[in-house]
Amino acid sequence: MRKLRITELNRITPEEFKAARKLPLVVILDDIRSLHNIGSVFRTSDAFCIERIYLCGITAVPPHPEIHKTALGAEFTVDWKYVKNTVDVIEELKQEGYMVYSVEQAEGSVMLHELVLERDKKYAVVMGNEVKGVKQGVIDHSHGCVEIPQYGTKHSLNVSVAAGIVIWEIFNKLRFL
Amino acid sequence: MRKLRITELNRITPEEFKAARKLPLVVILDDIRSLHNIGSVFRTSDAFCIERIYLCGITAVPPHPEIHKTALGAEFTVDWKYVKNTVDVIEELKQEGYMVYSVEQAEGSVMLHELVLERDKKYAVVMGNEVKGVKQGVIDHSHGCVEIPQYGTKHSLNVSVAAGIVIWEIFNKLRFL
Repeated sequence: MRKLRITELNRITPEEFKAARKLPLVVILDDIRSLHNIGSVFRTSDAFCIERIYLCGITAVPPHPEIHKTALGAEFTVDWKYVKNTVDVIEELKQEGYMVYSVEQAEGSVMLHELVLERDKKYAVVMGNEVKGVKQGVIDHSHGCVEIPQYGTKHSLNVSVAAGIVIWEIFNKLRFL
Repeated sequence: MRKLRITELNRITPEEFKAARKLPLVVILDDIRSLHNIGSVFRTSDAFCIERIYLCGITAVPPHPEIHKTALGAEFTVDWKYVKNTVDVIEELKQEGYMVYSVEQAEGSVMLHELVLERDKKYAVVMGNEVKGVKQGVIDHSHGCVEIPQYGTKHSLNVSVAAGIVIWEIFNKLRFL
């Protein structure tokens, strides 16, 4: 099988991206410490055309050379906004009709593959700090928790990998509704 | 929803992991340059109980402090082997009955969500270099290419995110067969 050249991938331009129909999904980064992880989430969000990223708390914002290293320019295509208080974003999104899920291991969390989405609804997912996860106070304002089932010895996945899996799964579920 | 404490996650011990039934999936890392990415793939592979990681070409091997930073000990639980030549691993796995897919954008590649897996078959996926992707010579020895559909401006995902999405999707497909 012949590998495709970059020119054959037919990627859209930044202008086309801005105008494109987006996946009804926003990602909220709550106290993400690593610039590498922030950049990586931008890159994934570009690939799946998500609506917007909210950068909250200690999460750094573009432009930043270290974010650029992993975002590779996706920080200029994906819409983003900095809001200090994550709960403010969640309350605003809920008012706008979004279903807000924290990605966390919690009592009564829904396993990601069992998450049922509805056509015409809009969704938001909160990704938490690399060490502490999503804060209990943030979870308390969410509609629920979504958990990536894990079967190994570790307690969690890298946050940019977890975001990738969640965005992919929601992308996949939404387009076949 | 109350967040679970680490002690409530009931993770298995490294000894239990070694003895546990694995997902019939091996991951081949072909010329991965970043120690962060290598460590992250170990951590994801631990979470989904994959069988083994093959580290090939310039891909660094544990123990290494930079791999440890993102693997967080998963480099001691997940079985791994270094083989210089990726094609040698592929040919060996094919002889053992594995279906080998390169994760790459190629002519006639199968979209990840459309990949059909069979019960009782074993699978291997090849993840390529951060800049160059999987080498054409490696693709030529694979049974086929699997592609993560992407709709943004960038040409690819971060390799540890791509590995996470592919491992999650195969994990999810295999357990419901």
